[in-house]
Amino acid sequence: MHYPLGTVKRHIQRADRGAVEQLGLYGVATVHEAMGRLGLMHTIMRPIYKGARVSGTAVTVLLHPGDNWMMHVVAEQIQPGDIVVAAITAPCTDGYFGDLLATSFQARGARALIIDAGVRDVVELEAMGFPVWSRAISAKGTIKATVGSVNVPIVCAGAAVNPGDAIVADDDGVVVVPASIAQQVADAAAAREALEGEKRAKLAAGVLGLDMYNMRESLAKAGLKYID
Amino acid sequence: MHYPLGTVKRHIQRADRGAVEQLGLYGVATVHEAMGRLGLMHTIMRPIYKGARVSGTAVTVLLHPGDNWMMHVVAEQIQPGDIVVAAITAPCTDGYFGDLLATSFQARGARALIIDAGVRDVVELEAMGFPVWSRAISAKGTIKATVGSVNVPIVCAGAAVNPGDAIVADDDGVVVVPASIAQQVADAAAAREALEGEKRAKLAAGVLGLDMYNMRESLAKAGLKYID
Amino acid sequence: MHYPLGTVKRHIQRADRGAVEQLGLYGVATVHEAMGRLGLMHTIMRPIYKGARVSGTAVTVLLHPGDNWMMHVVAEQIQPGDIVVAAITAPCTDGYFGDLLATSFQARGARALIIDAGVRDVVELEAMGFPVWSRAISAKGTIKATVGSVNVPIVCAGAAVNPGDAIVADDDGVVVVPASIAQQVADAAAAREALEGEKRAKLAAGVLGLDMYNMRESLAKAGLKYID
Amino acid sequence: MHYPLGTVKRHIQRADRGAVEQLGLYGVATVHEAMGRLGLMHTIMRPIYKGARVSGTAVTVLLHPGDNWMMHVVAEQIQPGDIVVAAITAPCTDGYFGDLLATSFQARGARALIIDAGVRDVVELEAMGFPVWSRAISAKGTIKATVGSVNVPIVCAGAAVNPGDAIVADDDGVVVVPASIAQQVADAAAAREALEGEKRAKLAAGVLGLDMYNMRESLAKAGLKYID
Amino acid sequence: MHYPLGTVKRHIQRADRGAVEQLGLYGVATVHEAMGRLGLMHTIMRPIYKGARVSGTAVTVLLHPGDNWMMHVVAEQIQPGDIVVAAITAPCTDGYFGDLLATSFQARGARALIIDAGVRDVVELEAMGFPVWSRAISAKGTIKATVGSVNVPIVCAGAAVNPGDAIVADDDGVVVVPASIAQQVADAAAAREALEGEKRAKLAAGVLGLDMYNMRESLAKAGLKYID
Amino acid sequence: MHYPLGTVKRHIQRADRGAVEQLGLYGVATVHEAMGRLGLMHTIMRPIYKGARVSGTAVTVLLHPGDNWMMHVVAEQIQPGDIVVAAITAPCTDGYFGDLLATSFQARGARALIIDAGVRDVVELEAMGFPVWSRAISAKGTIKATVGSVNVPIVCAGAAVNPGDAIVADDDGVVVVPASIAQQVADAAAAREALEGEKRAKLAAGVLGLDMYNMRESLAKAGLKYID
Repeated sequence: MHYPLGTVKRHIQRADRGAVEQLGLYGVATVHEAMGRLGLMHTIMRPIYKGARVSGTAVTVLLHPGDNWMMHVVAEQIQPGDIVVAAITAPCTDGYFGDLLATSFQARGARALIIDAGVRDVVELEAMGFPVWSRAISAKGTIKATVGSVNVPIVCAGAAVNPGDAIVADDDGVVVVPASIAQQVADAAAAREALEGEKRAKLAAGVLGLDMYNMRESLAKAGLKYID
Repeated sequence: MHYPLGTVKRHIQRADRGAVEQLGLYGVATVHEAMGRLGLMHTIMRPIYKGARVSGTAVTVLLHPGDNWMMHVVAEQIQPGDIVVAAITAPCTDGYFGDLLATSFQARGARALIIDAGVRDVVELEAMGFPVWSRAISAKGTIKATVGSVNVPIVCAGAAVNPGDAIVADDDGVVVVPASIAQQVADAAAAREALEGEKRAKLAAGVLGLDMYNMRESLAKAGLKYID
Repeated sequence: MHYPLGTVKRHIQRADRGAVEQLGLYGVATVHEAMGRLGLMHTIMRPIYKGARVSGTAVTVLLHPGDNWMMHVVAEQIQPGDIVVAAITAPCTDGYFGDLLATSFQARGARALIIDAGVRDVVELEAMGFPVWSRAISAKGTIKATVGSVNVPIVCAGAAVNPGDAIVADDDGVVVVPASIAQQVADAAAAREALEGEKRAKLAAGVLGLDMYNMRESLAKAGLKYID
Repeated sequence: MHYPLGTVKRHIQRADRGAVEQLGLYGVATVHEAMGRLGLMHTIMRPIYKGARVSGTAVTVLLHPGDNWMMHVVAEQIQPGDIVVAAITAPCTDGYFGDLLATSFQARGARALIIDAGVRDVVELEAMGFPVWSRAISAKGTIKATVGSVNVPIVCAGAAVNPGDAIVADDDGVVVVPASIAQQVADAAAAREALEGEKRAKLAAGVLGLDMYNMRESLAKAGLKYID
Repeated sequence: MHYPLGTVKRHIQRADRGAVEQLGLYGVATVHEAMGRLGLMHTIMRPIYKGARVSGTAVTVLLHPGDNWMMHVVAEQIQPGDIVVAAITAPCTDGYFGDLLATSFQARGARALIIDAGVRDVVELEAMGFPVWSRAISAKGTIKATVGSVNVPIVCAGAAVNPGDAIVADDDGVVVVPASIAQQVADAAAAREALEGEKRAKLAAGVLGLDMYNMRESLAKAGLKYID
Repeated sequence: MHYPLGTVKRHIQRADRGAVEQLGLYGVATVHEAMGRLGLMHTIMRPIYKGARVSGTAVTVLLHPGDNWMMHVVAEQIQPGDIVVAAITAPCTDGYFGDLLATSFQARGARALIIDAGVRDVVELEAMGFPVWSRAISAKGTIKATVGSVNVPIVCAGAAVNPGDAIVADDDGVVVVPASIAQQVADAAAAREALEGEKRAKLAAGVLGLDMYNMRESLAKAGLKYID
């Protein structure tokens, strides 16, 4: 389905709330593994402060370079537990978002902003506890001149995002889980997490991965040679 | 006026001290708005530690790639309340500045360094409370072989800086305010700041920007369509 | 000597332990100066958390893009006091290393990882106190399909590293000191450090570098002119 | 619809052939305008030689960093008039494609390759007349170890691509037109092209855009001031 | 002098026409040397086709990200022999300029465009013989919503440009010569050029620079040692 | 072996001349494959003009940012058939080399320059037929103030280069072959080349790589699934 610019979709199918909360427990690295290593945003996307971890459902917004008009439009579509995911139609590092918009987003129940551009007022955002993952920090404000779209499929920092998808973000980055497989991925992440504790204990005791994973034979077959 | 390399200008007209102090209260994002969105340095310029906010008057220095000789020349021109703004004649990430020079700059009354290159000794600089905004952190030292200039007009990280201009820097970036309009910009920033408190309260109460700014009609005229 | 891919060298000549510890006292900027300004890695290499400073002996590993199989092979070659230095055969930002491997490396006595690629689980790594200097942070995991090499000469972030070389890393970056000159460099660093205290005191008292280093005459000869 | 890695979709709905040919006549800039300024790939994507312009229908392939195994899988899905569009699951500049694969693709009827990674044998590719738009040129080959997918939705250089979409590429870049609107966009492009001849003649005669587009009044209203 | 956005200066002092023509004979590398190695734009600025060399007088334009409205305003200020130099208030790669605007600029007598952003229609521009130096090639068009300024001082790709300055551009890059020293720089360039022929002949005959420039002694003094 | 800055090694062991010539016949992509995919420089290294292919023996030079003094020192060490490979001690894009130095290098018998920095006079260099692979093109000249080294091991664009190594460069990039394995790599490249003709014929006839390389079974085992 192709949506022309200037479209706001009001009703979207959000990923299952329970699955989304569960995904937030495991963090980005585990979730990314659990969904088969798809859906990770580019590593240029970094949190504006350390230590935040969030999960939520995506409401998407597509904006123009240097123009944040649609940020006000998307605010109305936010429901508690949502994360706003913002893409720009061409590369831009302007500061699309600051403490005023964050106040509005937070009042609507948004948990975070993921934006493939810049943000500002980062000291105030940290003080408010409103986390943002962005490509840049920039004091440069934006105009309000051209309409974009809300809740249409977008590409944000190299990842395809559909409205309603589950988003997980922490200090390792940002991952997108399609709404249709959110529970399945949460289950796989849980299973993965369960296995890790045991492995960690063995490794801490000095067991080598070479032995724990039985890699010696396959390494030799692949041609690995030891010399002195 | 064109200055050949090898020029040190001793007497410069500094921006009004009161205006400069006032600008520091509002921070980079507000000041940048207040001066009509001009004068922001490129977002590659980042503070070496979080939480610093400074304002001051620019003493400028133009150096060569890998050569920090002029840092010692500019030190003599520093007056209390100044910020040293350093540009290089070609892209370079070398560490032009460390704790020894910072000791000297601080002793002369400098409040910060803004440099379109690298710095080092960042742990010591943070411990001393001497903030730096730079393009890079690099342990690579520099030589002292070629003369540049001090207190001539320079371009630093994409922004034109004249000696005596007001500089404001915080976690949102670095902005340059021409000395001749420093008070006018400070007043505009104050006015802007005054308005924000009221807006913030409304947004926190759940009022949408769409309504607070009366955007619905102009969005519709611009072609925005809601679908279900 | 040329080593084909698929080589693990078991016995390497490590830099003198005492010299390595001593180098760690001075930090990267001083050590880099002391060895004549060679051996610094590219400034893209940044610590995943602030405030760590380590020194150690290099065990090297050469991996393929998106493939961390050799991380398990190198683990076995780690001795207490080593730092693992990892290079990739082509640019890659994938997350080659996380908390499980860190547990194993730490159990073997490794002090840090230096990797010209990405890492993940950065919150856990900081909690464990296992420092990493890397080019990227990425949740993207890797496969285990192709053999690389261990303890062969590598190029990491622009610096040549031989197994056994001394490595020093802190917030200013990462420097490589050839094992054969580790003690000589440590001595030079000590001498350099000894001189700095006196200089710092003078500069703090307001003496200018121009005078302390007797630069005025050579600046004039180089053509520097003062104007008003 | 979410497709796990390891999926090859054999039957896809290709954009209307006539519309695709027509789009090729107008070129990327005009088509991008005609579809409302969506669908352009990042400007990092450049042709390996000048002067090529192609249009075709997308067959998509998703590969892993440093692994081109799926290039052989996608070859079988090519039909005459197709353009292969390749995305990698993480940033990579390796040379995934050279003259041997180009021979195979050309024999199957492919018109071009669009790849968000590297290619090699560029002299031979130009001699064969097989155009490629890529992010890099790299002699580095790839392994064949891990399965990806063919004809699933991908993100290539920031643009979402569905199998069957129309692709237009020339020296101005690469644009993706969803199959469902290919004819509509071709018509809009034709209309746009028709208007341009007349405008060009006027501008060549010295008429200003200011007058031809009646901009003077709106510029004055927007605050433009002329000074001497 | 500070100009707010929205200013068009109609009367500017152009560099001496004869000096400008003369500068064009020597090319960017020689002119840059002749003016003391100042005024070079960042190397990201590349010609859209090879082999063009131009000189002219700058008319400047300051635009907003994604907005080329002022391109039509600057067109009216062009006089024969001018080069339009365009800066953007924040980083942007959009295609601000294509064959229609080039037709208009050429009709007004402009010799080239220098733009710190993107251009499109590069095939047509080459066919028209209208050279452009830019940071990017992008098919992405722009809107016409916000006013900028014309013939105010700007910073383009790291170089300060005043209206009327002499501009020289060729395959080596773009250099800005302040109008007030254009003739002086042209003379210095001529002198420099005159010396080069003789040197070239000697070097071609196998004389070493070491001997021609008498470097051996100073190299030895600087510590250079020959070993076998 | 560690060489302090300021060392010129006069006698080096050059790779076998016959092997070097042979390597030049196969080009970079084939040679890189033949030596096991090691030794490729970073893809940022591009030729200043298209269509050149060279092979030769490396004479190396290590320079400082913005300082090309050692270019004159290395000139004396050139023997016919050599390629000068230049590294800088920190990132720099200055133009270290132009037509005068090229005249001297060519007179000494050098076949090309590989430099991890900038060059200028690119029009003249192409006219002279002196090819250069570089990271940048820059009109910015350099000073002559600090000594570096000649014919010491260097790292150039991510590849380790020892004096005497074989270098191959063409439009696909630059590869370094250790002198000790030059003949062995040349033989492997020849064998590889011999096989390719046959494969090319099959692929041109429409045979799929899937069948020619018998991949179908291993793909299925790796989990590849076909759907309609």
